[in-house]
Amino acid sequence: MAERPLPEYDAEIAAIIKSEMEKFVNLRLGEKVVAFEGKDKVEKVITNKGEYKCDLAIVAVGVHPNTEIARDFVELGKSGAIKTNSKMETSRENVYAAGDCAESLNVVTGKPDWIPLATPANKMGYVAGVNIAGYELHYPGSLKSQITSFYDIEIGKVGLSEHEAIRDGYEVISSFITTKSTARYFIDGLIHLKVVAERSGKLLGIQAVGKGVAMRIYAGSALLYRGANVRDLFFTDFPYYPPVSRVWDPLVVAARNMFRKLGIP
Amino acid sequence: MAERPLPEYDAEIAAIIKSEMEKFVNLRLGEKVVAFEGKDKVEKVITNKGEYKCDLAIVAVGVHPNTEIARDFVELGKSGAIKTNSKMETSRENVYAAGDCAESLNVVTGKPDWIPLATPANKMGYVAGVNIAGYELHYPGSLKSQITSFYDIEIGKVGLSEHEAIRDGYEVISSFITTKSTARYFIDGLIHLKVVAERSGKLLGIQAVGKGVAMRIYAGSALLYRGANVRDLFFTDFPYYPPVSRVWDPLVVAARNMFRKLGIP
Repeated sequence: MAERPLPEYDAEIAAIIKSEMEKFVNLRLGEKVVAFEGKDKVEKVITNKGEYKCDLAIVAVGVHPNTEIARDFVELGKSGAIKTNSKMETSRENVYAAGDCAESLNVVTGKPDWIPLATPANKMGYVAGVNIAGYELHYPGSLKSQITSFYDIEIGKVGLSEHEAIRDGYEVISSFITTKSTARYFIDGLIHLKVVAERSGKLLGIQAVGKGVAMRIYAGSALLYRGANVRDLFFTDFPYYPPVSRVWDPLVVAARNMFRKLGIP
Repeated sequence: MAERPLPEYDAEIAAIIKSEMEKFVNLRLGEKVVAFEGKDKVEKVITNKGEYKCDLAIVAVGVHPNTEIARDFVELGKSGAIKTNSKMETSRENVYAAGDCAESLNVVTGKPDWIPLATPANKMGYVAGVNIAGYELHYPGSLKSQITSFYDIEIGKVGLSEHEAIRDGYEVISSFITTKSTARYFIDGLIHLKVVAERSGKLLGIQAVGKGVAMRIYAGSALLYRGANVRDLFFTDFPYYPPVSRVWDPLVVAARNMFRKLGIP
């Protein structure tokens, strides 16, 4: 139904993912499923634009927080997930919530968010457990960091995409580059990278698709977690090893592009 | 001559590298070359412990800063490289030095250091150029980040190893773990990781050998650059993608081990 795959990513990144996917699958976008047909099993998918024979249909239409046992006695947040404080305590004292049913802080926006991902869920559980055990520990929140892949193309994102940042009211600048993730004399290794920042220079998010994505999203996670700006992205001393990185890392090149947009040397 | 390969690494890490190397080469340690012999080319290497026939000898005995044209009119630092300030200016006004001939700040120790690596050299050049052009830019220094490999084993280090930290007067704690860098159901992916911190919790360095090293050294570089502590290492929201990472990342597991040593939850 959506106009592009992975709609949380910006259009430049999604366009690359789309063209990679189209090499292997008959990708239908902007098209709505209206019925499944078949005798003993699904044999055909009917959409508002056509019919497709199939052996198997997988329905993936998103997730919702399951708050059934909680909603009558604790407050829910705007997202529909359970409201929590930084100790993962709900609106009711001594009652804790953690994981995909619970809201937590978005480190980039500083606002409550619903981030149903495995690593934040586990850390929320850790924090809730520590507090339940009588110690005090505060969960600083999540960056919505994610990596996935399509065949041998890695895809990753941390923080906000440009359209997410604009939607959240930020005045943004961005840099989108296509470059080698490795030394230039290696055949393979193209990476498409987009960095988004506030006009103050504070980093808001990083997206990437291609080769060498995981290490850049890992680095981006660390920088966003520590509230870094584009100057930090430029000056972080990333290691150079020709088969996996280059003297001017794609992250550093993107940062330098942003210096120009910010009018700083 | 040294007792182990890569002597800047700690003994636990060097022992793994050594055993990997011994699968492929006749590695001789603690042995001093005293002569090369041969008629038209080197045919034999003579050490204080034996003789080895060879087709080719490669001599790698380290590097020194080349300060020949500078040493008579600018100050050199303790390392023998050219002393600079954060604008990469030497002791003589309007004379700049950058690259392997120059000292710069070690971000971890906050002290002048000589770090003859490609990425710091390039950034020093960038900073010197900006200042020469009449703008003002300060080089924050280097982390001595590095990655290399031996066959399919990646090896990486950022910041200080434990023995380097002790030599520099730090009171240190450390955590050394061997774990999977990927989800446990992937066959491959063992990583050996060592994290070193001050007793205050401030990170001093990360070393790793095995699989998935580059992404952890990239993340470690970003955290060390931003002066992070073990709590930040634990709470940084690294992305989970089973083929390349896991819910509890090795970095996070190492951080949690250090919580115990620091007596914090």
